Amino acid sequence: MAEGSDDIQALIALMARLPGLGPRSARRIVLSLIRKRGGQMHQLARLLDSVATGSRECLVCGNITDRDECAICTDPARANGEICVVEDVADLWALERGHAFRGRYHVLGGTLSALDEIGPDDLGIPALIDRIRREGVTEAILALNATVDGQTTAHYIADALADSGVTVTGLAQGVPIGGELDYLDDGTITAALRARRRL
Amino acid sequence: MAEGSDDIQALIALMARLPGLGPRSARRIVLSLIRKRGGQMHQLARLLDSVATGSRECLVCGNITDRDECAICTDPARANGEICVVEDVADLWALERGHAFRGRYHVLGGTLSALDEIGPDDLGIPALIDRIRREGVTEAILALNATVDGQTTAHYIADALADSGVTVTGLAQGVPIGGELDYLDDGTITAALRARRRL
Ligand SMILES: [Zn+2]
Ligand SMILES: [Zn+2]
Repeated sequence: MAEGSDDIQALIALMARLPGLGPRSARRIVLSLIRKRGGQMHQLARLLDSVATGSRECLVCGNITDRDECAICTDPARANGEICVVEDVADLWALERGHAFRGRYHVLGGTLSALDEIGPDDLGIPALIDRIRREGVTEAILALNATVDGQTTAHYIADALADSGVTVTGLAQGVPIGGELDYLDDGTITAALRARRRL
Repeated sequence: MAEGSDDIQALIALMARLPGLGPRSARRIVLSLIRKRGGQMHQLARLLDSVATGSRECLVCGNITDRDECAICTDPARANGEICVVEDVADLWALERGHAFRGRYHVLGGTLSALDEIGPDDLGIPALIDRIRREGVTEAILALNATVDGQTTAHYIADALADSGVTVTGLAQGVPIGGELDYLDDGTITAALRARRRL
């Protein structure tokens, strides 16, 4: 047994399967935790148990929450007629960190994909269309990734909302803040050039 | 609160401080754990608690173990007269994975460093010299990193053992297996060339 004890080996193996980690980084993390003499490890264990027990999907929007409905869905100030449709909870979190959007969200949990046989029903798109009508939404912002599947999904939702009177928008494409042209792919440069604006 | 609940935010913040992780990778890991609906998170919590409670340093060699003395120090087959001196437990684990060394270890827990004011006593080098004499060691392999501080430490230990009759060796330097010359630093190429051998 190379790594100290059966539990240490099991912990490294479990950590190595987390996204972005591997055996080497898992070993580094576990060793650093052991060196800190328990305190941080017990704290991490306590938070993992608590999050595992307390977290679920918001019944309305799909955000992660510790209640039936998330803080955004229950905040009356955020019923401003705007709904932002995202693929993933991570995208919702990223938009919230920007503090720019003050409406509500809808998390699809993926994109349409012919290859993976994911259709509109799998993503709950009929329920989303329903929700948009029911909540008196005036603008649906489709904040989907600029990938083929993301854009296919956006077009599908835009089509489904075509006769609803709801304004459907998407995020602007262009050069990221601080982005160096040299490092951007050609598609982004072309899109940014086409959407150029007067200074 | 952008990220779901206070506990989720605290969990992300704690994970983001682990070596090699940051806020972005911590968020990805936490979201992936939440998506797996608790089972993996509770298992991770259980192992963290168990490792935090059960792990300590081997009283003889400094390896991480769940007993007073580690499995290597208590295995009579490994009292073969060879002791391998390493900076860190991670180095010991790496050597054990190689299955090439069948003796015992000594973990220094660092290197001599004038800058950080780490002297021989801070690393327990007198105790190491003692241990080498007491255990009838015939060869001390100084498997220290090929850094300035690592090599300074190796020279210091070699000097201290000069009159002991113990053979003091170091790891061979050269091109790593699968290493492309193009990607190696000049020092490694020079060392590999100087230590060239007949094929
Ligand atoms: Zn919600
Ligand atoms: Zn030991």
